[in-house]
Amino acid sequence: MSSQQLANRVKALQSSAIRDLLKHSKMEGVISLGGGIPNPDLFDTEGLELAMERVMTTERHNAFQYGLSEGDPALRAAICQILAERGIQSTIDDVMVTSGSQQSLDILARAVINPGDTIVVERPTYLAALQVFQLAEAQLASVGTDGEGMIVDELAELVQKQKIKAVYIVPTFGNPSGVTLSAARRQQLVALAQQHGFLIFEDDPYSEINFSSEKFRTLKSYAQEMGASDQVIYTSTFSKILAPGARVGWIVSPSWLKQSVVNLKQSTDLHTSSLSQSLTRHYLETGRLQSQIALISKEYKKKCDALCVAMESELGDRIRFHRPLGGMFLWATFKEPFNTTEWLKTTLQNGVVYVPGEFFYCDNPDQSTLRLSYASVSEENLLKAAQRLKASLP
Amino acid sequence: MSSQQLANRVKALQSSAIRDLLKHSKMEGVISLGGGIPNPDLFDTEGLELAMERVMTTERHNAFQYGLSEGDPALRAAICQILAERGIQSTIDDVMVTSGSQQSLDILARAVINPGDTIVVERPTYLAALQVFQLAEAQLASVGTDGEGMIVDELAELVQKQKIKAVYIVPTFGNPSGVTLSAARRQQLVALAQQHGFLIFEDDPYSEINFSSEKFRTLKSYAQEMGASDQVIYTSTFSKILAPGARVGWIVSPSWLKQSVVNLKQSTDLHTSSLSQSLTRHYLETGRLQSQIALISKEYKKKCDALCVAMESELGDRIRFHRPLGGMFLWATFKEPFNTTEWLKTTLQNGVVYVPGEFFYCDNPDQSTLRLSYASVSEENLLKAAQRLKASLP
Repeated sequence: MSSQQLANRVKALQSSAIRDLLKHSKMEGVISLGGGIPNPDLFDTEGLELAMERVMTTERHNAFQYGLSEGDPALRAAICQILAERGIQSTIDDVMVTSGSQQSLDILARAVINPGDTIVVERPTYLAALQVFQLAEAQLASVGTDGEGMIVDELAELVQKQKIKAVYIVPTFGNPSGVTLSAARRQQLVALAQQHGFLIFEDDPYSEINFSSEKFRTLKSYAQEMGASDQVIYTSTFSKILAPGARVGWIVSPSWLKQSVVNLKQSTDLHTSSLSQSLTRHYLETGRLQSQIALISKEYKKKCDALCVAMESELGDRIRFHRPLGGMFLWATFKEPFNTTEWLKTTLQNGVVYVPGEFFYCDNPDQSTLRLSYASVSEENLLKAAQRLKASLP
Repeated sequence: MSSQQLANRVKALQSSAIRDLLKHSKMEGVISLGGGIPNPDLFDTEGLELAMERVMTTERHNAFQYGLSEGDPALRAAICQILAERGIQSTIDDVMVTSGSQQSLDILARAVINPGDTIVVERPTYLAALQVFQLAEAQLASVGTDGEGMIVDELAELVQKQKIKAVYIVPTFGNPSGVTLSAARRQQLVALAQQHGFLIFEDDPYSEINFSSEKFRTLKSYAQEMGASDQVIYTSTFSKILAPGARVGWIVSPSWLKQSVVNLKQSTDLHTSSLSQSLTRHYLETGRLQSQIALISKEYKKKCDALCVAMESELGDRIRFHRPLGGMFLWATFKEPFNTTEWLKTTLQNGVVYVPGEFFYCDNPDQSTLRLSYASVSEENLLKAAQRLKASLP
């Protein structure tokens, strides 16, 4: 398929509910459980101001000048620290700064995927990842999820039947499913990659937003332990824990991939905003990130609990869901056959919007599903939203 | 060719002198006429601080939150003003903010070029544009340049023989050639596009850095006058007139292309750094850009004159060049057969580096050429550089 045709396919996807939702979410009186936007009231504006002060006083020239395609070495060193806390051993050379997870995926897709390669995603999976893989002219296959995340046994069956290039997965507090891959399945997935020689794209934007005391080990850290490090490409971002508007994320590449992703980054946009990188780096130097993460996790947990309770009491007889252990999303499924895309028209009239689940599938969409984002909604409005959803039931 | 093979081709290009030059240019005592980096001593740090103050006091939430893929409407409105001064009529809907010219080209290539399409570039042309078109699997053809820029008669012959998709051109103060397309040739080029139905990618990063009193009309403005507006896609950037590190540029798209580029922008990196956009917009609101452009033009002209005089007096018998009317680059050609890539080893030993011309060709490279960037070098060092080049002659 030509890039033009693909652009049109993307266009078709775009003209989906997503864009409308962004508009609706700004409409008077409408409560939006739509877009996955962090809560701006929780931004650490004091810390960001402090960091910006340091940028403007100590680093103006770097912040406004061209930089390396790999990213600011000082920022990459700080990222290596963060990775260590996530059980990932890395050096500056392993880390490339990107303009957020979306770009990380786009660059990976362009570096790794040849037209026709099969990429396996979760069912449901992150919508924008589907677009990136389609642009790279990949064939998409999908594997189901349950309360423990991707059903790796299903994947094992699939790779018996066909050769696959890579698995794309958000293993921790997934978007949209909200579920988390169990420890056993993480090891099973890495072992399977080792056995069948496929890659794993581990997309990890949410793992710090943890409602539990349990730590979920990254696939990359398992892979390093199991000698499969070359097969796991890890991406993460500051968007959900600091400020999405700065557009700063990163890729941890195996040696064989490093040069390709750097070359593609250079061809794509030379480098990520020096200003955004400098702000991020100086923010990290303030040492405030951990308490900021703690604050976000505490507040999002309250909201998540409020939504879960409200959904259970208002719609518990009609829908089921897995209570998220972290992150920003609740994924709900109607117990009976239902079309949530159609239903959106009614709920919008009643002043509440969400993302219909069907847009998160590359095949066999389950139209009885919906994604609810609680991060930016007050507890009071989360209850109202659940009541309005109930009032919208046929 | 697969994206992996292309990445490797890009890699080959990358491992060219360019990267090494960036290293060399930081070596003690070496004068670099290499990378096309704006002079940081000329950054309007006072104005940028003022703008950043306003961002942090009046617009923190927007600056740190997700934004529209099209870009900040207020910034796009300000860009429409700049475009009007360049003779281009536009509305906010015509303008999409990008993360700089490199990304503008990459998005255009992905939106417009199908594998095998022929793209015509100038001989010599901008290196990174070649990489982008190769990644898009385009066939490249080239047309010569002289003191009046692209030799459009040559293009006219070429389009008689074969169908082309687009012409990529930096018509004003070109990189690397330093030359400027004459008014007659601008109209001839647009008329030719009209007649043969090909597109023109007009890349215009340098036109504000004007050493003359003459104004050079954009191809887009001619196209609007001649009814060929749908065929000219115009890109520009704040990198050379404000701050490259912010990574803010833009595309002016015809109606038929608008949705595709926005969709691709969304799939590529969602949107350009809100912080960088906000800073740029507030800087424009200070009304300081015009005097900043005047300052840069005045200082670069001094440097350009100094380099031209020094090159004439030191190497005038061996090389020839066209005196730039603006921009950042002097393009020189040896009068005798010469290999400037080989020569670089000698000049480096003598403490001066440049970019060998052969890297700016997609075919038939002229190895007797070199690109000299004067923007970030003192007049004293420009003279020294010319003397060291002379001392390096075989």
